[in-house]
Amino acid sequence: MTPCVYIALIHYPVINKKGRIIASSITNLDLHDIARVCRTYGVRRYFVVQPLRDQRELVKELLTYWQNGYGRVYNPDRQEALKRIKVVASLKMVLTEIGASPGPVLVATEAREGWANLSFRQARELAKSGRPMLLLFGTAWGLAPKVLQICDYVLEPLKGQEDAYNHLSVRSAAAIIIDRLLGEPWWQRAEGGQ
Amino acid sequence: MTPCVYIALIHYPVINKKGRIIASSITNLDLHDIARVCRTYGVRRYFVVQPLRDQRELVKELLTYWQNGYGRVYNPDRQEALKRIKVVASLKMVLTEIGASPGPVLVATEAREGWANLSFRQARELAKSGRPMLLLFGTAWGLAPKVLQICDYVLEPLKGQEDAYNHLSVRSAAAIIIDRLLGEPWWQRAEGGQ
Repeated sequence: MTPCVYIALIHYPVINKKGRIIASSITNLDLHDIARVCRTYGVRRYFVVQPLRDQRELVKELLTYWQNGYGRVYNPDRQEALKRIKVVASLKMVLTEIGASPGPVLVATEAREGWANLSFRQARELAKSGRPMLLLFGTAWGLAPKVLQICDYVLEPLKGQEDAYNHLSVRSAAAIIIDRLLGEPWWQRAEGGQ
Repeated sequence: MTPCVYIALIHYPVINKKGRIIASSITNLDLHDIARVCRTYGVRRYFVVQPLRDQRELVKELLTYWQNGYGRVYNPDRQEALKRIKVVASLKMVLTEIGASPGPVLVATEAREGWANLSFRQARELAKSGRPMLLLFGTAWGLAPKVLQICDYVLEPLKGQEDAYNHLSVRSAAAIIIDRLLGEPWWQRAEGGQ
């Protein structure tokens, strides 16, 4: 079936370097880069979860520029991508917006070891089943434990070739994870003559 | 064999929206995001090719902050990643720096159709062969045709699930391409009990 995947970029509750719960600020390129990945891979909607009203207003202003202002004329492809963004105050509002019943399966992403209970293969299968899925990404040092706890699954961390270093930006992690879940199965493709 | 992959982010010669040759400016997050991907996936060195001296100086200042200034104390992981960056004035200097003889195989990346002569599977095999490889990424609207022409290969474009839309940022494209070439073969992994 056609995948029905949504993503949420969480600015609260996330943790800082010391593990304390914080609300993080909006990063402009999180909006652009991840929206472009969503548009490219067919993610239904990109929810930006930000409880601070001023910060939400900032996002709306930016979106207005690209959707109605000069940005739209200068770069219509960008507008296409940014249309997928919806800014909301809480994760609860994301679920209300999605509105599916019984609701999407919640899949958290987490760079640290110890939480994972879903492999990339399993996540890809789950996406292919067509069941609505909400993928959660944390800003700052990652999703707060209480978010991980309420999710149905926590996806395994990305691992590199070398040691345990996996300090990717949320933009890079989101790009790679969405490619693994929704990208074409390039590793299966028969090679024709090139 | 252990892959020996280098990357180069080209700021000149690249094309603008209208296809004209330009020199683009440094984007701060191109440095951070792609360096973190390089460190995570074991890319040997991340060359930032920028002919404009002022722009190169800007990068050096930024690297000094993270390598010797407060940034180093605040976030040592970042310094680890940024150490992979080397700023140079031209592609020729990249090749001199790599210094291998007969030199690395040059693999350009390109979002537009029509240039590709290397699939992702083939590129992954080539990387696994251990032969030094330099992957080239273009900023702005992509690498100039004359760069594509001197490369040994042009990698196939990333495709999403939907129509032909593939307007990814160079940061997202680099993350996905490096994951496909150097990431663990997650699709092959036998699933144990989770």
